[in-house]
Amino acid sequence: MIGRLSIVGLGLLGGSVAKAARAASLAQEIVGVGRNPKSLEPALRERAVDRITTDLTEGVRGADMIVLATPVATLERQLPAVWEAASSHALLTDVGSTKAGIVRAAEALGASRPLGFVGSHPMAGSNLAGYAVARPDLFRDATVVVTPTELTDARAVKRVTELWESLGARVVTMDPVAHDRAVAAISHLPHLVAMALVDAVARGAPGAFDVAARGFKDTTRIAASDPQMWQEIFFANRDALGATLRTFRTSLDELERLIEAGDAETVRSAIDRIRTVRERLS
Amino acid sequence: MIGRLSIVGLGLLGGSVAKAARAASLAQEIVGVGRNPKSLEPALRERAVDRITTDLTEGVRGADMIVLATPVATLERQLPAVWEAASSHALLTDVGSTKAGIVRAAEALGASRPLGFVGSHPMAGSNLAGYAVARPDLFRDATVVVTPTELTDARAVKRVTELWESLGARVVTMDPVAHDRAVAAISHLPHLVAMALVDAVARGAPGAFDVAARGFKDTTRIAASDPQMWQEIFFANRDALGATLRTFRTSLDELERLIEAGDAETVRSAIDRIRTVRERLS
Repeated sequence: MIGRLSIVGLGLLGGSVAKAARAASLAQEIVGVGRNPKSLEPALRERAVDRITTDLTEGVRGADMIVLATPVATLERQLPAVWEAASSHALLTDVGSTKAGIVRAAEALGASRPLGFVGSHPMAGSNLAGYAVARPDLFRDATVVVTPTELTDARAVKRVTELWESLGARVVTMDPVAHDRAVAAISHLPHLVAMALVDAVARGAPGAFDVAARGFKDTTRIAASDPQMWQEIFFANRDALGATLRTFRTSLDELERLIEAGDAETVRSAIDRIRTVRERLS
Repeated sequence: MIGRLSIVGLGLLGGSVAKAARAASLAQEIVGVGRNPKSLEPALRERAVDRITTDLTEGVRGADMIVLATPVATLERQLPAVWEAASSHALLTDVGSTKAGIVRAAEALGASRPLGFVGSHPMAGSNLAGYAVARPDLFRDATVVVTPTELTDARAVKRVTELWESLGARVVTMDPVAHDRAVAAISHLPHLVAMALVDAVARGAPGAFDVAARGFKDTTRIAASDPQMWQEIFFANRDALGATLRTFRTSLDELERLIEAGDAETVRSAIDRIRTVRERLS
């Protein structure tokens, strides 16, 4: 049981933390913090939070647990003010899609004022954004990556792990840099590729949209994602994205070369090998 | 009402034509033709077909409507024998994923023996294959592309259009070459790209599969497709696939360059433009 839980940013993820924590009776008081009162009010009306404020300092002061759920670029800007206002016993985490930057920033702040911080990344996004699509079961059976380093207090890791588990998630621990490489491959690259697919059809064969079936729609669903959010993610994880793009291009070039070479057996075995890998994912 | 409907190949598509035609009482007799009696028997047991045979000539002889539903490479090999055995009043169509090759082959045969033929491509595939996944409602609300040329008899187009519409589909007419370019962009390219995505993660960041969320799974579902079928499709549509791959690479390179250049506004507007295009697709 948490005394006061403050959530900064009540979008899809922050709003879902509030709803899930409320549903699980996880905190005595839940405070919603954001820039715009209009976008906080629905959470107050639905009693997902007990109190709202647009004052960041006031919102996190006295909290036992602080979840930072603003966009990636905003997170790093807000961290110094949050760090200063937080109680010395407070435990902090964030839900940003990239982790090396925010963890580095927290460790720099921790050098002068030690606080319990560990980064989190719930793999439970959506191409939709905002409190309107937040759900109390968003984290149920989802994977949350928690990213401690050798500087992280073990109790902070334990308590943040318990937070996610009590919201229904499965927690995986990863080094922040390894995390950023993994999500570059598994999330940021597929988003960029889906965008390029849609763009390629729009440029080269716009009439083809008329005959698009389920395969195309599934493959490109994530191309309809929030521009601001994805610009920030791409910028924050530029290096890892570049590296995984190089691997992707190698894979694509090789498949094309095999098709051009025209040896049916080699092409079938390449497709079969990839199918086997994909089928393991369910 | 069709007198005798012969379906060559009772996989996902052929089996679904049989089930849908039976459900709609579209034919007095439905004949299932295939190489392997074992894979035809389930359709006979379920009474989706009235009769099965492994003899292609016997199977299509006397049919009023013949639907060729074998894999792309098999289709062109079987066409001469079907053409010879078919009644002079028979109407032929196929369900192959590429159309220029089969239409060209049919027109070559038609030069010496005129028969009613028009190519079809139901955009209702699945990464799963075989009669076991065939469904009577597979074509309901699906798009079927019908590909006449200036040599095609207008009555053949009309009757094949009626066949698909009576199975619940929406029919779109396209020139065979335009069709092949459109499906290269909307179907074959996304399959190849999904395969390259899975391959890139397997090579570069295999541990990342552990944190794969819905976005990655949706984007790569079609990477778990039948190797034989997709080798044949890639080979049959190699030129159009190569052309659409070049456009895709241009789109991907441009997005990467924008991210590297680091101008947030330009990246946001590119993502926003692509999102708008994708959202129109539902």
